[in-house]
Order: sequence, then structure tokens, then C-alpha cells
Amino acid sequence: MRADEGVTAAAQREQQFVDAVIAIAITLLALGLPLPEGATNDDLLRSAWGHRQDYAVFAISFVVIYVRWAGHHRVFRHVVATDGGMGLLTAAWLFLVVLTPFATEVLSGDGAFAVRFGFYALVQGAMSLVFVVMMRQVVRAGLARDGTPAGVFRRAATGSAVSAVAFVGSVPLSVVTPWAYACWA
Amino acid sequence: MRADEGVTAAAQREQQFVDAVIAIAITLLALGLPLPEGATNDDLLRSAWGHRQDYAVFAISFVVIYVRWAGHHRVFRHVVATDGGMGLLTAAWLFLVVLTPFATEVLSGDGAFAVRFGFYALVQGAMSLVFVVMMRQVVRAGLARDGTPAGVFRRAATGSAVSAVAFVGSVPLSVVTPWAYACWA
Amino acid sequence: MRADEGVTAAAQREQQFVDAVIAIAITLLALGLPLPEGATNDDLLRSAWGHRQDYAVFAISFVVIYVRWAGHHRVFRHVVATDGGMGLLTAAWLFLVVLTPFATEVLSGDGAFAVRFGFYALVQGAMSLVFVVMMRQVVRAGLARDGTPAGVFRRAATGSAVSAVAFVGSVPLSVVTPWAYACWA
Amino acid sequence: MRADEGVTAAAQREQQFVDAVIAIAITLLALGLPLPEGATNDDLLRSAWGHRQDYAVFAISFVVIYVRWAGHHRVFRHVVATDGGMGLLTAAWLFLVVLTPFATEVLSGDGAFAVRFGFYALVQGAMSLVFVVMMRQVVRAGLARDGTPAGVFRRAATGSAVSAVAFVGSVPLSVVTPWAYACWA
Repeated sequence: MRADEGVTAAAQREQQFVDAVIAIAITLLALGLPLPEGATNDDLLRSAWGHRQDYAVFAISFVVIYVRWAGHHRVFRHVVATDGGMGLLTAAWLFLVVLTPFATEVLSGDGAFAVRFGFYALVQGAMSLVFVVMMRQVVRAGLARDGTPAGVFRRAATGSAVSAVAFVGSVPLSVVTPWAYACWA
Repeated sequence: MRADEGVTAAAQREQQFVDAVIAIAITLLALGLPLPEGATNDDLLRSAWGHRQDYAVFAISFVVIYVRWAGHHRVFRHVVATDGGMGLLTAAWLFLVVLTPFATEVLSGDGAFAVRFGFYALVQGAMSLVFVVMMRQVVRAGLARDGTPAGVFRRAATGSAVSAVAFVGSVPLSVVTPWAYACWA
Repeated sequence: MRADEGVTAAAQREQQFVDAVIAIAITLLALGLPLPEGATNDDLLRSAWGHRQDYAVFAISFVVIYVRWAGHHRVFRHVVATDGGMGLLTAAWLFLVVLTPFATEVLSGDGAFAVRFGFYALVQGAMSLVFVVMMRQVVRAGLARDGTPAGVFRRAATGSAVSAVAFVGSVPLSVVTPWAYACWA
Repeated sequence: MRADEGVTAAAQREQQFVDAVIAIAITLLALGLPLPEGATNDDLLRSAWGHRQDYAVFAISFVVIYVRWAGHHRVFRHVVATDGGMGLLTAAWLFLVVLTPFATEVLSGDGAFAVRFGFYALVQGAMSLVFVVMMRQVVRAGLARDGTPAGVFRRAATGSAVSAVAFVGSVPLSVVTPWAYACWA
């Protein structure tokens, strides 16, 4: 057996761990959904309509987490090794993933818009930022499969940096106007 | 290392992600089960009997989600690549999987039959529909292992299309009669 | 690529699915644990002591589910293929795994001993029974790796059959005496 | 197929099972987080500040569990076989992992400092102790990949032994002073 088999197995195990945590976080999102109540069709629909904000936030958060996973997935298929630095970055990134369902619940509460919005945006912005550093680490420590063009990681880093700026930039705006959501688009 | 190793690994990772989400959704189903209460054997049995609808819906939903997984499993063992389109379809399909325990809870509520039934049937029907499109994508984008007969995917698509029609078709019926359940058989 | 690669991948995916469901069920067990309360050390200990039955049932159930997984693990390392029958059996077995945390909660309630005990024992007995049929299916359908001695599966089937008899046999006893637990040893 | 393929597959499946349980435990930590409440930004921040102890314990526990996983990951990439002893040790270790979110909740309660602290420290100390025995088992039963220097496992055992002593040693201190936390650093 070659020495790098252990290395590749370690990278795979780390990626599978990421997958498991995201799969759980995405599924737990639905646990917090409020059940609509009502004995007649009309009452039930009215109750569901009253919860529309919770349902929208659930749907948005599902998309947000899934997009994170897809981004990780797209890039890490080229990554065949890991090291201590990548392990720490992955830990930080997963911490933010695990916080996301909680941040979602905070966001869907009533009132105190700036704080709720700011917390959610900071969590998401930090996640983007950590991902930028992960991309740098892949290139610097040479964790990718031989022959993978560095452009793959540079493009992913740029996209993630833009997203980090948009999220963090939306925070001061949120003090002024709920249209701060527009920054996330 | 050959270029397609990355591709196959990406397809595998996507399938494992599907598995993880379904495994969690199926296990979370049981979290919502109401505990029967009673200090004597008779009281406990009477209490359990009072919850019989919840228990039945749990059992049915377990079967429903498992059948989905088995269908995915049966077909995707022949799929060795993935692309952006399949990623989006998988996201949509998993969104509906994650919604299923919630839809199950809605369905097992009292009153407002048409709305409860309709919501559940639409979630299931949409899942079937998305699966039909997934099958088309496998064939069109050539994601299957070389030598897999296209009939495998065509048959799966047909079965799923029938199921989509049955679920969606049961919705207008449910306004008239609870026997709309018969469409799901 | 050889035809059996798809078959082996299918068997592996089924086993990984089993693992995921069991891992979730085993971790969810702890969710139901009642928190001890009390502002002084003495009060907290007294409160914890009052919950001792819940804690014991949690510990026992953890062991019960883990033993199931270990048994599956020990035998299925020799299994490299799957078929429709095994898929159905696996579904039934996982249904009972998913029910086990619920059965555990029922068991740890007060009063109505015979019904609580009987339900738990039936779930466990059924799980053993399904495992016996799984072992037969491995041998009959030739799902094992070439060269695996059939004795591996025959011994596992016998052990599981004994356990099924013990669990089911303890049910009538439980009407008479709480010592029916002794059958489970 | 060679005989050891089954052995390696068994070791991999055990490690993946460990991963799944830890991924779930780490994600469930966040489920217990109390939502801050308040209709104005100030009220919400004040409410969040009131929960600061819960949030700190969540963050600490995330780090604690992740460090466990990283330690397991670092060493077990060299482990390619398993046996009955390792299976039992893994079960005991996972039992403590599953207990950790519960121990975390106990720890974050008010009052009764010595008992809450002692319970958490004992769970963590026991986990370290079990890990020391796991390392011994890898070396004694020859479960590592050929050519792995035994120093890898000896160093991991020493580190874990130090941690076990620190955790257990902090228990008597906690009766005297909350600064017993310093032992965990």
C-alpha cells in the first residue's frame, strides 16, 4: 500500500464528515416548522398564512445551506489531501453550519430587525470568509489532485469573497432599512 | 489518476448525501410519535388506540420515504457522474424529502381534510415529478455507467410519472371524499 | 468496468444506509433524557436519582441498539451483493430500529407494566426474527463474498433465533412478574 | 478478492459509524440553544446576554467534541483492521460522545456547581481513558497499516492520558472553587 492512501482516506473522511453534518443541519431545519392549526379548510389555510414568514425562512435557509454544500462539493472533488490547517478551517466552517438553523430561528422572530438580521448576516459572511481561506490553503499546501488547474480554487475564492462582502455589507444597511435583504441576492 | 475519478467521486458523494438526508428524515419521523399514557394496562392501551391515526401515518410515511429511497437506490447504482442540472434536481428532491415529516404531521391533524390531504399529495406528487426529470437528465447528459440499457431509466421515469399523476389527481377528489386515499395505492 | 461493481456498490450503499439510521437512532436516544434540576448539589443529586429509571433505560437501549449494529456489522462484512428481498428485509429491520427509541420511552413510563414491557419485547423480538430471515436470504440468494463459510450466517441465524424466542417468550411472563426481564439476559 | 478486504471494509465501516454519531451529536448540540426574545434591538441583545452561559457552553462543547473527532481521525487513518475488543471500546467511547450534549446541558444549569462540573468532567475524563485503551489495542492487536510507526499511537495515548488526569483531577477541585475549569485548558 502506498503512503498516500492514508492521506487520501483522511481527506475523504473529512469530506464525508462535512456531508454528514450538513445533511443533519438541513434536515433539522424542518423540525422547527410551526404546524398550522384549524378544524376547517379555511382556518387551516389562514393559520398557515400566518406562519408564512417561518415557512419562507425555512425555504431560504434550505437553499442557503444547500448552496454552501454544493460549493464545497464542486471544489473539494479535486482535493485529495488534508492537513492540520484545513482541519481547523473545516471545524470553523462546520461550527457556522451548525449555527445556521439557530440563526434562522432568530431571524424569523418578530421585531428587533437590525439585530436579528445582523446576526444571520454575520454568520453567513463568516462562513464565506472561512471558505476563502480554505481555498487559499488548498493552493498553498498543495492539497489538490495533480493536474487540477489552480483557477478552480481561485474562482471559488473570488465568488466566496464577493458573498462575504455582500453579507457583511448588509449589516449596517439593516439598521436603516429592511431592504438590506437585497444585498444577499 | 484519471480525470473521471473526480467525476465518479462527485456522483458518489451526491448519492451519499441523499442517503444521509433520507436516513435522518426517516429517523426523525419517529420523534413526533405521541407517547401513550396510563397507569394501568387498560388505560395505556386505550390511550394508544386514541393515537392510532398518528401511528398509522408514521408507519405509512416510513414506507413512503423508504420506497423513495429504494427507487433512487435501484436506479442510481448505474449512475457514475453528475452535473449542475442533476445537482439542482437533487436539491429540489431533497427539499421535498425534508418536508415529508412535516407534511406527515400536517396530514395527521384533525379536520380540514381537503387541505391536509392536498398538501401531502402535492409534496409527494412533486417528488415523483422531479424524479421523472432526474431520469431524463441521466439519459440526456449521459451520466450512467457505459453499457447500462436506457430502458432502466425509461421504466423508472414511467413508474414515477404514473405516481405523480395519481398523487396530483387525488387532490381534487379529496374535496369530495376521503376515499381519495385510494389513488395512492 | 465489470458488471458486479454496480452490485457491490448497491450492497455497500445499503449497509451505509443502515449505519446512518442506527447512528441517528442511537444519538436521538439521549435527546429524551430528563434534565435533573436543583440549585444545590444535594437537590440535583436527588433529582437525578429520581430519574434513575430513565437513565437506566437509556443506557440499556444504547447497548441494545449497539449490539444490533455490531451483529449486523460482523456478518455483513462478508456480504457483497443485495437484491429485492434483502431490500425489503432491511426496510423492516430499520423500521424496528427507528421504533426502538420510542419503545424505550414507552418502557420507561410508570404503571401498566405488562403492556409497556410487551411492546418493547415484541419490537426487539421482531427485530431478531427479521435478522434470522436476512441470514437465510444471504445464503439462499448467494449474496456473500465467494469463499465465505456458510457457518458464519448459520451461527448468526441461530443466535438471533434464540434471542427472538427469549424476547417473545418474556411477554406472557410479564403479565405475572416484573422478573420477566430475566429472559432478556 | 483477498481475505483482508473484508477486514479493511469492517474497519472503515466502524470509522464511518463513529463519524456519523459524532456528526449527529455535534449538530444536536445546537438544538438546545435558547432563543433570545425581545421586540426591540435592545431587548433582544439583553435577552441574548442573559443566555451567554448557554452559548458559551455550546461553543465549548462543539470544540470539545470536534477535538475528539480530530484526534480519532488523526490516528485512525493508520488503522486498517478491527476486532471484538476495538468494537467494545468504540461502543463505550460513542456512548460517552452521545452523553456529551446531555452533560453539556447539565453543566449549563444554575447552582449545584460541584455536581454539574463533576459529571461533565467525569464523562470527558472517561472518554480520554477509553481512548488510551483504544491506542493500546491498536498496537497489541496489530490493527494498523503495515509500516506505521508505533510512536503515532504511543504519542496519542500519552496525550489522552494527560487529558484524562486533568479532567478527573479537576473534580475534587470543583468542590472548592469554580476555577477548577483551569484544569481543562
